[in-house]
Amino acid sequence: MPPFEDALKNTAGEINSRISDLLPAPEGPESRVIEAMRYAMEAGGKRLRPFLIVESGRLFGVEQEKMYRVAVALECVHTFSLIHDDLPCMDDDDMRRGRPTTHKAFDEATAVLAGDALLSFAFELVSSDRTHQDPFVRCELVTKLAQSVGAHGMIGGQMIDLSMQTLPQDIPTITRLQRLKTGALIAFACESGAIMGRAARDARHALEAYAHDLGLAFQIADDILDVEGDAEELGKAAQKDDGAGKATFISVLGLERAKAQAQMLADQAKRHLVMFDERADLLREAAEFVVSRRN
Amino acid sequence: MPPFEDALKNTAGEINSRISDLLPAPEGPESRVIEAMRYAMEAGGKRLRPFLIVESGRLFGVEQEKMYRVAVALECVHTFSLIHDDLPCMDDDDMRRGRPTTHKAFDEATAVLAGDALLSFAFELVSSDRTHQDPFVRCELVTKLAQSVGAHGMIGGQMIDLSMQTLPQDIPTITRLQRLKTGALIAFACESGAIMGRAARDARHALEAYAHDLGLAFQIADDILDVEGDAEELGKAAQKDDGAGKATFISVLGLERAKAQAQMLADQAKRHLVMFDERADLLREAAEFVVSRRN
Repeated sequence: MPPFEDALKNTAGEINSRISDLLPAPEGPESRVIEAMRYAMEAGGKRLRPFLIVESGRLFGVEQEKMYRVAVALECVHTFSLIHDDLPCMDDDDMRRGRPTTHKAFDEATAVLAGDALLSFAFELVSSDRTHQDPFVRCELVTKLAQSVGAHGMIGGQMIDLSMQTLPQDIPTITRLQRLKTGALIAFACESGAIMGRAARDARHALEAYAHDLGLAFQIADDILDVEGDAEELGKAAQKDDGAGKATFISVLGLERAKAQAQMLADQAKRHLVMFDERADLLREAAEFVVSRRN
Repeated sequence: MPPFEDALKNTAGEINSRISDLLPAPEGPESRVIEAMRYAMEAGGKRLRPFLIVESGRLFGVEQEKMYRVAVALECVHTFSLIHDDLPCMDDDDMRRGRPTTHKAFDEATAVLAGDALLSFAFELVSSDRTHQDPFVRCELVTKLAQSVGAHGMIGGQMIDLSMQTLPQDIPTITRLQRLKTGALIAFACESGAIMGRAARDARHALEAYAHDLGLAFQIADDILDVEGDAEELGKAAQKDDGAGKATFISVLGLERAKAQAQMLADQAKRHLVMFDERADLLREAAEFVVSRRN
């Protein structure tokens, strides 16, 4: 296995064990909702956002165990968004990563509540003094995370996605959609190390710029996978976005220009990291991975 | 109008204007979700939780404008729970407070997202330095709020409510249901003033005890209103809980014993406030109001 994929897999393993440790235990008559939270969180995936968090913290010498807590919090938020996006009233997906979605494995009401509880739990994790000794840092994480999630963040992005039929199908609208829907959490991931490490302004700006380009590259690559992907390999219905007549970068740019754009953004993302020397090598490889991955 | 109801109405007016000021503006292609957030938040109601927040802050001399921010945050959380509880997959209510519920006025997907965004926004509000100068206080508010909302808080209570058919229909289970579903946010409301005012331990314990009894009294009174209430007056379908065969204090205790229990709890709540002298008179009246209100 190449060193990057090895590192990614290693972080995923650490995160999976922290998820199991940190999430509430399924106790009391309310345990069903906790079982659903755990079911959705254990579904796994590449854990790319946690990897970005851990690697961004490494740049500033932040204790790894603390970055894991932020990583679990962000994974709670990401998973909450997947649970709700899969609901019948949203994208209506029965399968994700080869397993029944949460509302299929449990029921719709439990899935809604499990998503809600994961979102809330993320803030409980981040605001704890075990995440950082400095309460200013914890408050900044809470504020940034809430903004990344909110009406002008990821949730706003999903709202635009659902409204695309009534909006202009052009590059500015699709860029805003993706910058919010996927980009906001990726930006939080990349900036969290700088916040935790109380980094200087220029380092923060470099990571913001990296996250911006990485997020768009990630989304374009995702759209390409949706078109080219094989349903079995992805574990969800491929070409769904295309089939539903949703506007994507591909429907506007065409497949070849979209591929070139994704590669251009990945290259640009890497160039923002120059001040971090070889300490940022894994983040550079992450940018390459995002546009070359097959699922 | 009696002094207490005048004070309640006055606080409601202040809160309504802060809601309008503090919530995000409906801008960008994502504005639909913000319109839905505002629609649900503007539905009003008595604003009892904000009142408890403002009055608990008054006990410790906390600046009123700061308590209003906490109050708006809690009202965001309360409204998020109403939006999601009204969804077809939960209680399936078309009307609330005489107006179409959010998923009826907009659509289900928008309602799910508006609830999510309100929950997230509550943490953004609370973590801001405009809410309190001391970041330790802000972190404690975030942690307490998240716990009040989470799987062992309000959301857990809703989970128990939905699972009642498979759980023992006894007083311990119903008490836990209500302590989580209604009690957790009321407890946060009553304790927030002590947190904001960095109150001594005995004052906090007094407010915790007050909140515990008040929350249960509130819920029993609510159950009584559901049985005795008139659909038009309540603005929602009366006797719904009874019709759906849900266990309540009334189905287990009977109507008369439930009424006596509510009054006993209200009296007990008031007695916890003795250390605050006449400064807590409005909180005492709130306890009486909760069991004597007609809607």
